Amino acid sequence: MSDLKSLQQLIDEKLKLIEFPEHPSSLYEPVKYMLSIGGKRIRPLLVLMACDLFNGDINKAINPALAIEVFHNFTLLHDDIMDKAPVRRNKVTVHEKWNPNIAILSGDAMFVKAIQLLLQTDESKIRSITDVFTATALEVCEGQQLDMDFENRQDVSLDDYLHMIRLKTAVLLGCSLNIGAIVAGASKEDCDHIYSAGCNLGLAFQLQDDLLDLYGDEQQFGKIPGGDIIANKKTFLLLKALELADESQKNEIVYIMSNPSLQPVEKVSRMKSIFDELHIADHTLEKMEVYYQLAMQMISTLHVPDERKSSLTGLAESLRVRVA
Amino acid sequence: MSDLKSLQQLIDEKLKLIEFPEHPSSLYEPVKYMLSIGGKRIRPLLVLMACDLFNGDINKAINPALAIEVFHNFTLLHDDIMDKAPVRRNKVTVHEKWNPNIAILSGDAMFVKAIQLLLQTDESKIRSITDVFTATALEVCEGQQLDMDFENRQDVSLDDYLHMIRLKTAVLLGCSLNIGAIVAGASKEDCDHIYSAGCNLGLAFQLQDDLLDLYGDEQQFGKIPGGDIIANKKTFLLLKALELADESQKNEIVYIMSNPSLQPVEKVSRMKSIFDELHIADHTLEKMEVYYQLAMQMISTLHVPDERKSSLTGLAESLRVRVA
Repeated sequence: MSDLKSLQQLIDEKLKLIEFPEHPSSLYEPVKYMLSIGGKRIRPLLVLMACDLFNGDINKAINPALAIEVFHNFTLLHDDIMDKAPVRRNKVTVHEKWNPNIAILSGDAMFVKAIQLLLQTDESKIRSITDVFTATALEVCEGQQLDMDFENRQDVSLDDYLHMIRLKTAVLLGCSLNIGAIVAGASKEDCDHIYSAGCNLGLAFQLQDDLLDLYGDEQQFGKIPGGDIIANKKTFLLLKALELADESQKNEIVYIMSNPSLQPVEKVSRMKSIFDELHIADHTLEKMEVYYQLAMQMISTLHVPDERKSSLTGLAESLRVRVA
Repeated sequence: MSDLKSLQQLIDEKLKLIEFPEHPSSLYEPVKYMLSIGGKRIRPLLVLMACDLFNGDINKAINPALAIEVFHNFTLLHDDIMDKAPVRRNKVTVHEKWNPNIAILSGDAMFVKAIQLLLQTDESKIRSITDVFTATALEVCEGQQLDMDFENRQDVSLDDYLHMIRLKTAVLLGCSLNIGAIVAGASKEDCDHIYSAGCNLGLAFQLQDDLLDLYGDEQQFGKIPGGDIIANKKTFLLLKALELADESQKNEIVYIMSNPSLQPVEKVSRMKSIFDELHIADHTLEKMEVYYQLAMQMISTLHVPDERKSSLTGLAESLRVRVA
């Protein structure tokens, strides 16, 4: 079995070795830039770990792993255009550094490259791998669309939200584990279960992100708490609060969200007061725990000796952040 | 062998049967709209004709044929955003009817759908089909990027231009014929030759488009002649004129292109005078003929009885428009 660190090193190395044509540089420079600005590379790591878990040859999983990372970065690139985001991971976004047209087209080229990498694996596995990948890719588009739709909707329920984040972020984690398992030749049942484990982990981590946006340590996460509140984002926290709020709390929430004269700091502190009254952090932690345990349960069903599972469960555990 | 009309009907029928999820409708309505606004469906027709030419089962080529058409429409959708085009085929463009974000994302979803369709074919052919498809898709992105780059460059040569249109439009015609041939189990040599035939036809037709923009019959083509001149587009006509122009003609061309006070009608008529002086239409027809004959030569090398080739050469012939 391979340890986490060597898998991470392998991914970083191989990512740097992905070849792109020299010309036109206006198309490929933004692609290389986007891939160079980092991130935790969780998805390719999940591909390799799942492959390793089922005793597969990780050399055969490396290209599909890179494919998922390139695809993920393609979605971030296009999302950044749509969100008009100026910065990603402390770097200027592609559409700002170059322009939106170049960002659209470089994203398209990344998607093609992702498909090329995905196909560089055992011929006998191509059909299963591409089936799960394309189904997931379509769901990711659907999730992003729902996220945009929600901005203009006043009737978004908690279930709507959970459905949206499942599509927008969770399924790609499931897909990563699934593809690693396919490469290793795992059974259909094991593939389905590890896919489900990934989706549930993805849901847990998205809720954790929602929570940390407000309750995370400013020092540790490097951003001012409450960005989602300032942006009126419909997160789990807000939607749970709306679900639990009494009439006067609901009025206060609506007031905070719709009053343009409120300063950001006041907006955050007043919303946080309501969230605290309603124990929103606890409710979120509880829901996260449900998804996390579902993931662990799915991993426990896999037909592999328990000791092999420790690196995957260990990774999942390490991604959990303790919230005070 | 199947006749042209029945192949066209088959494509139209099957295109309408492509299934998309109901939700989110904001993602899939634009996709259905884009696919419904028509076009000549030349690319899927080429896939089926090439398959038929080599005695293949066209039922196995239909999904890859649809894939190419969906991919082509995806590129048009994204190109329209980049070009800020208000209208395509007399219909409002997607980014105008909805908005640019929806157009970006619907395009992405179309690309995924294209890949799904492409893979719905004989397992043994998937590798070859996806190899040629992804290489082509990347080239199409490169071509679009070069086209955008050229807008801001003053040193574009005729060769640069021919390279750009090869990537942006010609290779997809080559790819279409190539994929049809692969499905039919044609030899590598025949696949390469029919690919080359398609590229050369694509080049000939792009030059024909350039020519018709100015010299086409207004009644027949439904647009005012000279749109490319009004938009200062670097077409074969303009670049050939710059190549042949003497000093005073060159100055006149630069003056026409850079003087904002010139009315469109005057701009077109003055540029047309220079083109006529330099016999640009004849030079363009000559170059078209070179590519057309190269295509015919490639088709003549294919290892199929000559009588089977008549529908492909007939289609190519029918796409040529006589310019007075």
